[in-house]
Amino acid sequence: MKAFMDKDFLLETETARQLYHEHAAQMPIVDYHCHISPMEIAQDKKFDNITQIWLYGDHYKWRQMRSNGVEERFITGDASDREKFQKWAETLERAIGNPLYHWSHLELQRYFDYHGALNGDTAQEVWELCNQKLAQTDMSARNLILRSGVKLICTTDDPADDLRWHQQIAADESFPVQVLPAWRPDRAMNLEKPDYLEYLEKLGQAAEMVIDSFAALLDALDKRLSYFAKNGCLISDHGLDYVMYAPADEKEIETIFAKRLAGEQISLEEERKFKTAFMLAMGKAYHKYNWAMQLHYGVKRDVNKAVYAKLGADAGIDCINNYAPSGEMADYLNALAVTDELPRTILYSLNPTDDAAIGTIIGCFQDSSAAGKIQQGSAWWFNDHKAGMTKQLTSLASLGLLGNFIGMLTDSRSFLSYTRHEYFRRILCNLIGGWVENGEYPADEKVLGNLVEDISYRNAVRYFGFKEL
Amino acid sequence: MKAFMDKDFLLETETARQLYHEHAAQMPIVDYHCHISPMEIAQDKKFDNITQIWLYGDHYKWRQMRSNGVEERFITGDASDREKFQKWAETLERAIGNPLYHWSHLELQRYFDYHGALNGDTAQEVWELCNQKLAQTDMSARNLILRSGVKLICTTDDPADDLRWHQQIAADESFPVQVLPAWRPDRAMNLEKPDYLEYLEKLGQAAEMVIDSFAALLDALDKRLSYFAKNGCLISDHGLDYVMYAPADEKEIETIFAKRLAGEQISLEEERKFKTAFMLAMGKAYHKYNWAMQLHYGVKRDVNKAVYAKLGADAGIDCINNYAPSGEMADYLNALAVTDELPRTILYSLNPTDDAAIGTIIGCFQDSSAAGKIQQGSAWWFNDHKAGMTKQLTSLASLGLLGNFIGMLTDSRSFLSYTRHEYFRRILCNLIGGWVENGEYPADEKVLGNLVEDISYRNAVRYFGFKEL
Amino acid sequence: MKAFMDKDFLLETETARQLYHEHAAQMPIVDYHCHISPMEIAQDKKFDNITQIWLYGDHYKWRQMRSNGVEERFITGDASDREKFQKWAETLERAIGNPLYHWSHLELQRYFDYHGALNGDTAQEVWELCNQKLAQTDMSARNLILRSGVKLICTTDDPADDLRWHQQIAADESFPVQVLPAWRPDRAMNLEKPDYLEYLEKLGQAAEMVIDSFAALLDALDKRLSYFAKNGCLISDHGLDYVMYAPADEKEIETIFAKRLAGEQISLEEERKFKTAFMLAMGKAYHKYNWAMQLHYGVKRDVNKAVYAKLGADAGIDCINNYAPSGEMADYLNALAVTDELPRTILYSLNPTDDAAIGTIIGCFQDSSAAGKIQQGSAWWFNDHKAGMTKQLTSLASLGLLGNFIGMLTDSRSFLSYTRHEYFRRILCNLIGGWVENGEYPADEKVLGNLVEDISYRNAVRYFGFKEL
Repeated sequence: MKAFMDKDFLLETETARQLYHEHAAQMPIVDYHCHISPMEIAQDKKFDNITQIWLYGDHYKWRQMRSNGVEERFITGDASDREKFQKWAETLERAIGNPLYHWSHLELQRYFDYHGALNGDTAQEVWELCNQKLAQTDMSARNLILRSGVKLICTTDDPADDLRWHQQIAADESFPVQVLPAWRPDRAMNLEKPDYLEYLEKLGQAAEMVIDSFAALLDALDKRLSYFAKNGCLISDHGLDYVMYAPADEKEIETIFAKRLAGEQISLEEERKFKTAFMLAMGKAYHKYNWAMQLHYGVKRDVNKAVYAKLGADAGIDCINNYAPSGEMADYLNALAVTDELPRTILYSLNPTDDAAIGTIIGCFQDSSAAGKIQQGSAWWFNDHKAGMTKQLTSLASLGLLGNFIGMLTDSRSFLSYTRHEYFRRILCNLIGGWVENGEYPADEKVLGNLVEDISYRNAVRYFGFKEL
Repeated sequence: MKAFMDKDFLLETETARQLYHEHAAQMPIVDYHCHISPMEIAQDKKFDNITQIWLYGDHYKWRQMRSNGVEERFITGDASDREKFQKWAETLERAIGNPLYHWSHLELQRYFDYHGALNGDTAQEVWELCNQKLAQTDMSARNLILRSGVKLICTTDDPADDLRWHQQIAADESFPVQVLPAWRPDRAMNLEKPDYLEYLEKLGQAAEMVIDSFAALLDALDKRLSYFAKNGCLISDHGLDYVMYAPADEKEIETIFAKRLAGEQISLEEERKFKTAFMLAMGKAYHKYNWAMQLHYGVKRDVNKAVYAKLGADAGIDCINNYAPSGEMADYLNALAVTDELPRTILYSLNPTDDAAIGTIIGCFQDSSAAGKIQQGSAWWFNDHKAGMTKQLTSLASLGLLGNFIGMLTDSRSFLSYTRHEYFRRILCNLIGGWVENGEYPADEKVLGNLVEDISYRNAVRYFGFKEL
Repeated sequence: MKAFMDKDFLLETETARQLYHEHAAQMPIVDYHCHISPMEIAQDKKFDNITQIWLYGDHYKWRQMRSNGVEERFITGDASDREKFQKWAETLERAIGNPLYHWSHLELQRYFDYHGALNGDTAQEVWELCNQKLAQTDMSARNLILRSGVKLICTTDDPADDLRWHQQIAADESFPVQVLPAWRPDRAMNLEKPDYLEYLEKLGQAAEMVIDSFAALLDALDKRLSYFAKNGCLISDHGLDYVMYAPADEKEIETIFAKRLAGEQISLEEERKFKTAFMLAMGKAYHKYNWAMQLHYGVKRDVNKAVYAKLGADAGIDCINNYAPSGEMADYLNALAVTDELPRTILYSLNPTDDAAIGTIIGCFQDSSAAGKIQQGSAWWFNDHKAGMTKQLTSLASLGLLGNFIGMLTDSRSFLSYTRHEYFRRILCNLIGGWVENGEYPADEKVLGNLVEDISYRNAVRYFGFKEL
């Protein structure tokens, strides 16, 4: 029996252990997609206790606590931090086979040097240990980033954002990590939302113009794209129900937009046409700016309206939306490819059953402008666990070139989540090590070490065009 | 090489063996969902031969025999019981990797003490052995239940059922097993069926009222709900094409119902609205009665009309219906949650590709009214095999709290199917044992033994509120 | 650690090795579905170099090269054969976990006696070795077929084909391998294509009649069916977006067809009705001729229109179409079954998530006219890899009778692809061997050897009714 989460955690063969310890683990981290607050980095945020850093914003943990029958006041309510931590510790013990079990213990090991198991009985000792450590200066936001080996972070930012925190961090020579903005224009696309006109107002102010037409919207966005580019942005990101393709001519789109401006009802088909036009314009813009485009889809958000009314978005009430016609996604990519304006693109579905469809679609749009130009993104959100990552990696390898995969991201709001890169790298090395030891690929450490290092770090640096790394 | 189906069948690690033999195998059975006939229990049915108990009603076996090119007369026709058994034995040999291979041999081992392999050559000796044993008194319906360690059974019953057999069993102090009704009102919902009006007549008689409106239908059902509750019912069950959500106001539903009463054509959208209204009313009723709600979906029934014309329903001619919009299912649950009337709910899809969608949806609706309030049901029907159960358990663990899972049910018509609980428990212990021996969870027997016992038995008792266990 | 792709490649247990070497490997090959050119067999084509045989027509390899950022001129363009081979060798090294890695090395081992690893460094030595070997007479098309142990090949042929090459091969007594036509009438069904009327002209000429109605189309097809049957055809094949069922009466179909003949626009629903009528007529015809019907679906073809404009079809620009309603597929099969005109049928989806739906549907339509009358086809195209085949075999075994499976086909354009049968057989034996060594099936070599031989060879011979084998 292997010891519980020791140094060879998830590494089942000698080749896996060698690839991980001597190659993957040696690589720095570029975390090209996360939801970390740049303000918290700029201000070098510190944490009073483990509940603040673990439970204040982590809807993954909230869901599990609710699944354990914990009252909401111990989750997001007015219970004390110590009480909340106790409830979490008791919940965790029931979470056998869940990534939160592994994430939590990896974080306890790497940042707090705790190697036991957290549960209701050990909660008090863990609480004390963690809070002691958090009081030390090396546990501030910046220091957590630095000691995790992170070289570069891309946050997630609205086009109307002034990027002041990114600028402040960039100007601060004492902090060597690049913190770049990433462009996330969902609010500019979602015309069905009640606050859409307010948002246009805000975006117009940022762009210093009035948005009174779809053409003007695109102009305003282009001004902001340019501003983001000047601030080092290289990546965009879209959160979509599904990747749709309902083409319409410019005039029809302007009519739909005018209706929305006038406060009239928009039909579902009009919404589809507008969003298609929006996404085509964005794709072309990214191609022009030489940015990569991330498309995250397969999600239905905020489905529990009772919780949403109390807590708003990101409250642990999102699920898979299994309507995602692969044909429309292919047609969308094609519409950009036919005019040679398809940017480097990364496709992520929340639905793991989309793996194979994605794997076959990306192969249709590869070209010599980049190795692995079209990527299937890392197993995302609810798929970010051992079974999910293994499935995604196996599918990707079976259908394309695993060697060109740009690898892992945290998608996280927490400064402790960099262990997810470790988790991914262990799973990657274990998978590859298993193949090699089973005679399915030559046992050539130079080739394999290179491959694992590429996927862990170098492919992403090259793919996104990150500088000075 | 491990011996064929010996005591450590499917238990690949020492931890798995320990968890199974010392914990899971020690637990009684509550079979909270099956299709056993309460009459056969009340009358303590006996069987003349193995064909009667194995082949008279088991459409799982019928399908495999047809797949082997066996003529229908040896399956459901007028061939002798001995001939039918021979054909089944010959079919079974071809069923490598099929759960029927394991179920059949587990049943031969546990109930008939036969430890060889059944095939065409051994059919005669197995036939003789089984029939000898079946002639003994300990092989009656009741004795099979008792020797299987079953403490409680929930049957599947129509709202119009008078539950006389349940009452008779309950009144019989010589039989210590609880046999409770479960509420299955499909016929009251399926207004598209040709015999719907006849059914309303029948239901009205049971409720002692005339059903001349949707409101009256709900009244009638409430009377029957109350009657079922008085007879110990704690669980409802619905067989759905898919979980739909097409809301409409009361008036529109009454109009649709009136059309149906008048024998007019109902459109597909009207059907969707009616069924949505029906399911909302039922969900609220279960919340009121504090029952659990089971939703079984993803099925298309009776697809081979040639066979249906000859044999009727449950003839082995059902398949997966892969239309099951996760968004509508989430919306349905939300519609109950917003008024705080969502009952404890168990979601089962026949389509294994729905696992992840279900796993993410249940997490959105958990609350402190019960640990694991919303459950993904056990791998069901065509998924009830080693690969399917392992997939369902892995998905559930990856997305939620496996520790709160309410575990297995037989879904069977046979008194020999309790070995499916054994099959499940072995697979469960093997999965958990594998994780532990791989260092993914601490090797703490107390915690693990408790977890396995909970999933095997205690979680279901607590979840459904079964008494006196 | 196992050596790289040695004689026990993919065979992880002693039972697996025994079953493979002593049984599966001993069986001849019937390749009942491929895209080999009968002209190339008739003319006994030879190859000047490895690029000609590997890269001239293999869109699987093209996709991977594009994924590696290789310029199109080194793929399908005017670069030299040596340059193209170099780019392929460099690409292959990145393809860890991809079936092309295994296929390529199996081909190098079996046909060129090269047992190293092909990569950028070894490309020159492999190039020289392969080209030397290709210059030998035993490397002609016919000799490659013969030395692969192939007894029978079914090509893929349009109804208008005159089958002259098949006739020429059949008349040539020096070549003992049967090369039979297979009927693929896609062009006669796809009325939405711009060249449909031209095709009707061509088909009419072949049938020596004018096609001026749907009835006439069916007459023309029946003449060609009869011609194909006389030329030894026993199998049909259809490439479908999805298996649809939109019934309409004869008159409506004639109206739709007349509109198409007149050059009018056909609606999507009219297309669905026409194609349903076409497929019903074809199914009945196959039943009459006692042919097997292959339905390949779940594909969206030629999605990258930029590449399509340059290279046409089969250019590596196809992907999964995930719209495939299982209910319609069941309804289509039922419509043939109700009049007892359902032919032996093989269902293949490109989408691996359809495995379970297919597995449950085939069980609904089995009957005593053939063992395994309705089959799930082998893991196809993008699923033809270790994970995909293991998944398909496991699903098939879990839901039906693996023992009656008709096994593997190459689906290939290349004379080197017969190693895919070896690949399949190794995976099959490994899966079965694993079950046996885990105690899940008796370790009876006679039964197991027979089973493996059946799936490798004999089931297909029996199922299709191939003669003189």
